[in-house]
Amino acid sequence: MSVTAAGGFVAAGSACGIKGGGRLDLAVVATSDEAPATAAAVFTTNLAAAAPVVVSRRHLGATGGRARAVILNSGNANAATGKPGEEAAERMCAAVGAGLGCASQEVLVCSTGLIGIPLPVPLIEKAVPTLVGGLSRDQAAAAAEAILTTDTRDKQVVVRAGGFTVGGMAKGAAMLAPNMATMLAVLTTDAAVDQPELQEALAAAVSASFNVLSVDGCTSTNDTVIVLASGRAGAPAPAALQAALTSACTDLSEQMAGDAEGATKVVRVTVVGASSDADAAAGARKVAQSQLCKCSWYGQDPYWGRVVSELGSAGIAFEPERVSVAYGGTVVAAGGVAVDHDQAAVRSHLVGRHLQVTADLGLGAGAASVLTNDLTHAYIDENMGTS
Amino acid sequence: MSVTAAGGFVAAGSACGIKGGGRLDLAVVATSDEAPATAAAVFTTNLAAAAPVVVSRRHLGATGGRARAVILNSGNANAATGKPGEEAAERMCAAVGAGLGCASQEVLVCSTGLIGIPLPVPLIEKAVPTLVGGLSRDQAAAAAEAILTTDTRDKQVVVRAGGFTVGGMAKGAAMLAPNMATMLAVLTTDAAVDQPELQEALAAAVSASFNVLSVDGCTSTNDTVIVLASGRAGAPAPAALQAALTSACTDLSEQMAGDAEGATKVVRVTVVGASSDADAAAGARKVAQSQLCKCSWYGQDPYWGRVVSELGSAGIAFEPERVSVAYGGTVVAAGGVAVDHDQAAVRSHLVGRHLQVTADLGLGAGAASVLTNDLTHAYIDENMGTS
Repeated sequence: MSVTAAGGFVAAGSACGIKGGGRLDLAVVATSDEAPATAAAVFTTNLAAAAPVVVSRRHLGATGGRARAVILNSGNANAATGKPGEEAAERMCAAVGAGLGCASQEVLVCSTGLIGIPLPVPLIEKAVPTLVGGLSRDQAAAAAEAILTTDTRDKQVVVRAGGFTVGGMAKGAAMLAPNMATMLAVLTTDAAVDQPELQEALAAAVSASFNVLSVDGCTSTNDTVIVLASGRAGAPAPAALQAALTSACTDLSEQMAGDAEGATKVVRVTVVGASSDADAAAGARKVAQSQLCKCSWYGQDPYWGRVVSELGSAGIAFEPERVSVAYGGTVVAAGGVAVDHDQAAVRSHLVGRHLQVTADLGLGAGAASVLTNDLTHAYIDENMGTS
Repeated sequence: MSVTAAGGFVAAGSACGIKGGGRLDLAVVATSDEAPATAAAVFTTNLAAAAPVVVSRRHLGATGGRARAVILNSGNANAATGKPGEEAAERMCAAVGAGLGCASQEVLVCSTGLIGIPLPVPLIEKAVPTLVGGLSRDQAAAAAEAILTTDTRDKQVVVRAGGFTVGGMAKGAAMLAPNMATMLAVLTTDAAVDQPELQEALAAAVSASFNVLSVDGCTSTNDTVIVLASGRAGAPAPAALQAALTSACTDLSEQMAGDAEGATKVVRVTVVGASSDADAAAGARKVAQSQLCKCSWYGQDPYWGRVVSELGSAGIAFEPERVSVAYGGTVVAAGGVAVDHDQAAVRSHLVGRHLQVTADLGLGAGAASVLTNDLTHAYIDENMGTS
């Protein structure tokens, strides 16, 4: 049930024809009665934000953070489409508003797919009445499928906390591929929470989950995470909602990394011993985004020299003679130079799907971790053309 | 003659056995008489700087910017090798100093190759006497060959300016591959110039050439550019030396980009209309380093949406409704949206080896350009293993 697991929510998914071939490409998540949910969202920081991001931001501002529904399409990002793109996103919301009997400002919108192609909005308008008519707690899986692009499987989560539930669905940024341009997630909860608290809890959850997922360093035009709270389960214990949201978002982000079509490895890069947490995060991100490191993980090659080289150019406090590097817990370099180690243990770790690369800078207590993938032939195959 | 084209210089190259198989892997460039040259250098900003960088910096400081010779080896970067690495680099300089009859501080040193492997310095010490004995104006090509790693051809340049000459040799950063870790260049000139002026001219030349070459965003542990000035041709006209050095460095950097083993395209990314030159440079670099853009160039796909998305997340002033994008001068998007254009002209441009991607931000007069390559299957093949 995922996105409908929390009390008060329904969903639906259908094939409106954007993708063609009968593939699901349109989804709605809505409250199950006429009362709007408390709504909060985190959007891309990309200044080339897509029309649906612009429109959702505007609607949340107009309502002060309330929403009846979210409409999502895949196959077309409605990005770099100018004023007609904004009108198309508004028309998507208006169609759902008409179906549900609410103001279009109470509807949020997400799109994912190719950038720069006009959105075929009549296809969507034609499909919405039937889609809204089919809203049900049972249709969460169809909604989760309808937002996928090159993902190989849907991504759903349910977290049952003390007295309330958080559910959600997402599509991946795990391997940014030609026919997608974004990561999207919609979460729902039956916890009762005021809007500023919900926004704060979501921001913290995103910061600890999706924002430490780094695939290729690209920040999409459409990235959106939305949470709707129905209030049906009453007020949660302090901090419990944020913990549950963080748990749900972490689960979804790990599903994204694990479903990196084109990738063979899920790699957690951890930097400890940094002068600060910020230094550790910058160092981990520099290593995680390194084309050279990504290639060596693909090749199952414990080339720690590249890790050190990336840390040395990360713009952080760094003393080469203090650094150590470990693969799967086996230290291969210490004091800045190679050390004798159990090579069989390293080889055995590197052939697995989940790699742990840890660098200890030996300077302080700063620590951070980033989740990423390797760089493979299949990544290039997926991204070398749009047709 | 390249690195020996300017009056007062000799060179030599030999196979000392680091690479094995009789491949040239050791080079010396020296002044042809006992007088040292005026010397200046630009080194990597990587805090994990390799031992030869540490030692060359120390020697330039000790002499106040004079040098009799530079010794260079390929096949081993002598990086992440700790104190023994520094001692090895000092021993390389001492061997050349003994052969030439000068102080070891008057010798500079460069290494390129694998990181983290102890340098087999006895092989070098054994080869140096014969190498120094063979120094000659005719051996510039052997020296240029001895510094290569996965480069497919040597990189040499001669610039004859009014009354003086600049010559040089380089090895590529064009496609950072497993057995190299750096870009190296040694330039010589017979212009007479004092040390601060030489340093300033070199820094400006590097800034306008090698520093706008971006292959994979990695800053190596060993990057070094050295210039030696013999003074034999007398003092050049004001600004003439800097112009000639810039011309030589630009030529060498274009040879690097053109010899990107594993790459199929040399791509010049130009950003104009930015709020400042710094914004333009940051935007061009973000696009040039984008894995997604690099894949689309490999696929000859004019997916301008990715260019816009990268610019929007480059941390620069950006208004999506003002941006236009052109491939080879054909505008495919303007005002932030797709426009009708000559598709045959774009296709014809994209199948070529040299691509021009231009983004006009429509905001100001800032402009900058970065040279890069595409991301290919062969790049991954070269970088997925060290053995």
